[in-house]
Amino acid sequence: MNPVKIIDVKESIFADNNADADRLRSELKSTDSYLVNVMSSPGSGKTTTLLGIIKELRDKLTIGVMEADIDSDVDAYTISNVGIEAIQIHTGGMCHLDADMTRQGLHEFSEPKQLVFLENVGNLVCPAEFDTGANLKMAILSIPEGDDKPLKYPLMFECVDLVVINKIDTIDYFDFKVDQCIENIHKMNPTATVLTISAKNHTGIKELADYLYAKVEAYHG
Amino acid sequence: MNPVKIIDVKESIFADNNADADRLRSELKSTDSYLVNVMSSPGSGKTTTLLGIIKELRDKLTIGVMEADIDSDVDAYTISNVGIEAIQIHTGGMCHLDADMTRQGLHEFSEPKQLVFLENVGNLVCPAEFDTGANLKMAILSIPEGDDKPLKYPLMFECVDLVVINKIDTIDYFDFKVDQCIENIHKMNPTATVLTISAKNHTGIKELADYLYAKVEAYHG
Repeated sequence: MNPVKIIDVKESIFADNNADADRLRSELKSTDSYLVNVMSSPGSGKTTTLLGIIKELRDKLTIGVMEADIDSDVDAYTISNVGIEAIQIHTGGMCHLDADMTRQGLHEFSEPKQLVFLENVGNLVCPAEFDTGANLKMAILSIPEGDDKPLKYPLMFECVDLVVINKIDTIDYFDFKVDQCIENIHKMNPTATVLTISAKNHTGIKELADYLYAKVEAYHG
Repeated sequence: MNPVKIIDVKESIFADNNADADRLRSELKSTDSYLVNVMSSPGSGKTTTLLGIIKELRDKLTIGVMEADIDSDVDAYTISNVGIEAIQIHTGGMCHLDADMTRQGLHEFSEPKQLVFLENVGNLVCPAEFDTGANLKMAILSIPEGDDKPLKYPLMFECVDLVVINKIDTIDYFDFKVDQCIENIHKMNPTATVLTISAKNHTGIKELADYLYAKVEAYHG
């Protein structure tokens, strides 16, 4: 197995997380790093989706991944084993990351990356409340979870730039109406981009990677 | 649609939630009510599982359901529409319930029930940290979420008495090893009961209902 750096993050020393998140965005800009905060329920397919994006973009951009977990290192090894630098962040029971915890992770990379993914703790509630300093916020919702989830976890779907509907290959098995789900999302977040994928079958991943690549290109100017 | 009481719970005035949870258990005992705290990720099938249990036990016990959600009333109406008294608890953004919030919900029932289910906020992290005063803690894990979840959200699977593995009807589609999952659960929680069901197809629901009925009978003495 490829090596993975594992760090235990400490609680932030900054009282004002929003101000610290802005400060982190300035720091990221100074190293030309674009940070994407990836949020979802447990088991929505965050890591598999990242593997697909990496496949599409690894020849165009330098990429790093930070895996936030309460415990376990399995996702960081999965990423590291395809040759992408991965940092495992252990939150010590905490249900989300703030900007300073994200900074602690970023400092562990051997060198700045053009595109960094932060795979947040699997949780549709708490991570939505904390600005991690990311340039883009992305939520993944998988078909087995149900098309009503945007209504039940509104803050998550209100705060993100991009919603990825994953496991579309299982649509025949579950009672999930994609149009209704997109309507639910747009009711509370009219400008959100919604993309439909199957990370397992690589369906829709090129479109997702193209979307992210355009964002990174615009950021790097 | 049948009526549903909807309440906005207030933050607890008690500094020591554990002591308050013990106090709530005494209060429940005085009315012969048995409280089950049902926890899972969003979309694991909590409401559908409760509908199945209700079908099995409604002729034997008086049953009530409290639905905790950040927003939305859909689950409470689903329960109410089968003729079971349902209380919708809105948490106002909070990611879990504590004992006093649970008490606020219990007080809304028209009369004490022999068996009360608290459907907690969909979240594998925070609800595990708060004793709601329940007599039994039950986690639901669904096949699409993956068999590694007990390792990634250890506190949830350590703290419960019962783990229900749901959506077993989808086992052929997902890479989920039931034996491995049970082994993962028992590694950290050797005495946990693990039951496998498909709430959608009513598979295993009788066994689950029998397990709960035996607990309630023993409690009522």
